[in-house]
Amino acid sequence: MAKSSISNSVIRRLPRYYRFLKDLENNGYVRISSRELSEKMGLTASQIRQDFNCFGGFGQQGYGYKVSDLKEGIKKILGLDRLNPIILIGAGNLGCAIAAHIDFRSKGFELIGIFDADESKHGQEIGGLTIQDAAGIEKFCSENKPSAAVLCIPKTAAEKTVDRLINCGIKAFWNFTHYDLFMDHEGIAVENVHLGDSLTTLSYRINSGVNDRRI
Amino acid sequence: MAKSSISNSVIRRLPRYYRFLKDLENNGYVRISSRELSEKMGLTASQIRQDFNCFGGFGQQGYGYKVSDLKEGIKKILGLDRLNPIILIGAGNLGCAIAAHIDFRSKGFELIGIFDADESKHGQEIGGLTIQDAAGIEKFCSENKPSAAVLCIPKTAAEKTVDRLINCGIKAFWNFTHYDLFMDHEGIAVENVHLGDSLTTLSYRINSGVNDRRI
Repeated sequence: MAKSSISNSVIRRLPRYYRFLKDLENNGYVRISSRELSEKMGLTASQIRQDFNCFGGFGQQGYGYKVSDLKEGIKKILGLDRLNPIILIGAGNLGCAIAAHIDFRSKGFELIGIFDADESKHGQEIGGLTIQDAAGIEKFCSENKPSAAVLCIPKTAAEKTVDRLINCGIKAFWNFTHYDLFMDHEGIAVENVHLGDSLTTLSYRINSGVNDRRI
Repeated sequence: MAKSSISNSVIRRLPRYYRFLKDLENNGYVRISSRELSEKMGLTASQIRQDFNCFGGFGQQGYGYKVSDLKEGIKKILGLDRLNPIILIGAGNLGCAIAAHIDFRSKGFELIGIFDADESKHGQEIGGLTIQDAAGIEKFCSENKPSAAVLCIPKTAAEKTVDRLINCGIKAFWNFTHYDLFMDHEGIAVENVHLGDSLTTLSYRINSGVNDRRI
C-alpha cells in the first residue's frame, strides 16, 4: 500500500497520527472528521486528507473517519503489527535511559540484548536484560538474529561498530551517536537522532522569535 | 537577518550545517564549494545554495564559501553566541541521561537547576548539579530567572507543570513528555522530542523498504 514516493514530512507525521488515534479510541471516539482531527493536532484538515490519500484514503467524503479502522490502517503501514528483534550497543547514561524508558514493543520492536565494551558494566541489569560483553555480539547475532540495533556509542567507535553489525545481519539502525549514519550504507534503514540538533533548534526559535507550532 | 517565513525543513537543517562546518574547520578546511559540501552532507548543491539564500547568502558565485565565516554566520542565526539559562524538570532515567549526556553550553543553553517531586532523589548529583525539590521551582525561578525548561516528566503531570513554569517566566520548552506541547500556549518556543515516534518511523522504514537518506 505504501508508495516509495511518500514524502518524509508525511512519514514523520504518521507516528503522531497513530498516537492521537489511540488516545481518541481510548477516550471513546468512534468517528472523527478531518476538521475535528485537524483542530486536535494543530494541522489543517486538507493536510490531513492529503496525508491519508497517500495511503489510499481511509474515509468517505462527508462521513469522517472510523477511528479504529484508521488507527489499525496506520498501525499496519507503520509495521507495528509485528516485532523486529533489536539490540542496544552502549550502556552509558543514554543507552540505559533508552533501555529503561522506551516501550519498544509498542513501536514494533523487541529489545533482546544490551552490549557494552566496558567490563565493569557486564552483568548489570536494565529493563530486565543483562548487559553483555560487546565481544560477544557476533555469537549473539548468529544465534538470535536481531534485525535492528540502537547505537548509543561514542562517535569514534561508530563507523567500526556499524560495519561489524552490518556483517552480523543488522539491517536497521536507531542511531544516537554524533555521527550521521547513511553515507556508505545503501539498503540499510536508519533513523538518526540528534538530540543536540533539537536543542540547537530551540535556541534558534528563541533567538528568532519563530515558533512554528505545526511540527 | 532571519526571516519568519523560513520553512521548518530549512530550520531543521541549520544545526546539521553547523555541525558539519565545525568538523570541516577542525579538519583544516578554509573554503568549500556547495558541491563539495553537498557530497559530504547527502544534500544537493542547489538545496544548500537555496538554504543559505534564506539568510542572505554567505558566498560569492564560483568562489565557494569561507568555512569559518559560514560557521560563524550560522552560529549567530542559531543564537549560539549567548547562553539561555535552562532548568530540567524530572530526574528519572531520561532526565538524568539528558543532564549528564547533553553539552548544553555548545547548544546555546546553560543548565542551572534540576528538579524532581520525588523526595528520595533530592540531594543527588547529576552533571555537577544537585537535584532539588520541585516545590522550590517558583523561588528558584524568581531568584535565577531561567528562560527555558527541559521537561522529562510523565504525561499526566505535563499540563499542570507547563502552566506553572509559564507563570514562572519560562518562555521555551524542550519537551520529552508524551504530550504535544503547543495547543494553548502561543508565544512560547517549543521543541517536542518524541523518541517513540522516531523509533516508530524506523519500523515504517523497515516495513516499507523506504529509506530516504536525505533527512
